[in-house]
Amino acid sequence: MATVQLTCFAQTGNAYKVALMLNLCGVDWEPVFVDFFNGEARANTYRELNEMGEVPVLTDGDMVLSQSGAILHYLTDKHGQFGARSSPEGYEILRWILWDNHKLSSYIGTLRFLLQFAKTGETEVTKFLAGRAKSALKVLDTHLVDVDFAVGNRPTIADISMCGYLFWPDEFGVSWDDYPAIGAWLTRIKALKGWEHPYELMPGHPLPDKAD
Amino acid sequence: MATVQLTCFAQTGNAYKVALMLNLCGVDWEPVFVDFFNGEARANTYRELNEMGEVPVLTDGDMVLSQSGAILHYLTDKHGQFGARSSPEGYEILRWILWDNHKLSSYIGTLRFLLQFAKTGETEVTKFLAGRAKSALKVLDTHLVDVDFAVGNRPTIADISMCGYLFWPDEFGVSWDDYPAIGAWLTRIKALKGWEHPYELMPGHPLPDKAD
Repeated sequence: MATVQLTCFAQTGNAYKVALMLNLCGVDWEPVFVDFFNGEARANTYRELNEMGEVPVLTDGDMVLSQSGAILHYLTDKHGQFGARSSPEGYEILRWILWDNHKLSSYIGTLRFLLQFAKTGETEVTKFLAGRAKSALKVLDTHLVDVDFAVGNRPTIADISMCGYLFWPDEFGVSWDDYPAIGAWLTRIKALKGWEHPYELMPGHPLPDKAD
Repeated sequence: MATVQLTCFAQTGNAYKVALMLNLCGVDWEPVFVDFFNGEARANTYRELNEMGEVPVLTDGDMVLSQSGAILHYLTDKHGQFGARSSPEGYEILRWILWDNHKLSSYIGTLRFLLQFAKTGETEVTKFLAGRAKSALKVLDTHLVDVDFAVGNRPTIADISMCGYLFWPDEFGVSWDDYPAIGAWLTRIKALKGWEHPYELMPGHPLPDKAD
C-alpha cells in the first residue's frame, strides 16, 4: 500500500489537480474511491475525515489535508517542485490559485455538474454560471497570450490548479477555438512528463468513450 | 499620504477582509475609492492595475497584490500577526481561506449582490445561491461549536477572511439565531482591538442607516 492516498473519483477536477501534481512529482500514491454520486461524501463517516464534506482529501502519514489549493502548497513544499522561486512569486501563485477557486474552477465545476451529471438542461442557473465561467476564461486567456505558463514562465501549482476542469471543455459547452491561448497552454501542460487525463488517473469513470 | 493603499468601496466584503486586517495590525493605510457600481473596476485603466478586474488591490511600495487571501498572507508575513505558529497550522489556515473563497464568501457575496444591489428579487439563481450559502454556513457553524476561532483557538487570517461578508446578515437573508456558533464568533471578532464595521471602514457607503 502506498503511504500517500488521495480520496477521489474520476469526475472531479478538484481531486484531479492533486492527482496530477502527485503524478508530475513522481510520487508513489494510490487513489481511494469515493462514491460521490451515491452520497458517500455527504455521509457522517466521511465528515469525520473532512468536516467540509468535500473531495479530495490527501493522507500522507500523519498529515490529513483537504482543499486542493492547500494540498498543492503542501506537496510543493515537500517535493520542491512546481513552487515559487521567491516570496513575491509565492504571493502571485497563491493569487492565481485563489482566483481559480473563487472564479474559474468554482463556476465551471458547478456548471458542468448541473449539465453533465444532474442533467438539468439549460436553466436560469446554468445560464448565470456560464456567464461567470466565460468571464473567467476570458481573463485567463488574456493572461496567457504572452506567457507559456501563468507565473514565472514555467509550470507551477497555479497552472496545475487552474487546469483542473479544463480537459473537459465539451462537458461544459466551450471550445478552445474561442480561447486559443488557453488551448495552447493546455497543450503545453499535456506535454509535461507524467501528465494523464483525469479519466485515466482516477477511478470510477463511467464513460469510457470520453477518455480520449 | 500613507504608503499603504487599498482600492475598495464600502459594500465589498472581500476588500473589508483586508481593511480589517490592516486596522487590526495597526497599519497606517488609506482607502482608494473604486466606483464599482458605475463600472470603474471593469474599465481598461483598472485592468492595468488588476487584470482580474477585481477589488481589492493592495499597494505597498513596490508590492501590488490582489485577491484578499493572498494579501492576508502577505500582511501576516510582514507584520507577524494573525498567522500560523507551525507549518501544519499554516496549511490549516490556508485550507479555510480557500474554502471561504470557494464556498462561503463567494456564494454569499454573489447572493447579496443580486438581492441588495442588482435588486433582482428572488429568482431561480438566488434560490440556488442561497442553498449553497446555507450549506456553507452550516459547515462553519458546526466547526465553531467547540472552538473560539477557526484555527488554533486564537484569531487568525482564516477568521478575518471568513467574516468578510458576515456583518450584513440581513442583506442576504439569514439570522444568526439559526447559526448561533457563528453569531458568538462574530461577537468575539467585534471585540478585537481595531475592529470596525465595513460601512465605517471603507468609503462610498450610500446607506447611512445600515452603519450600526
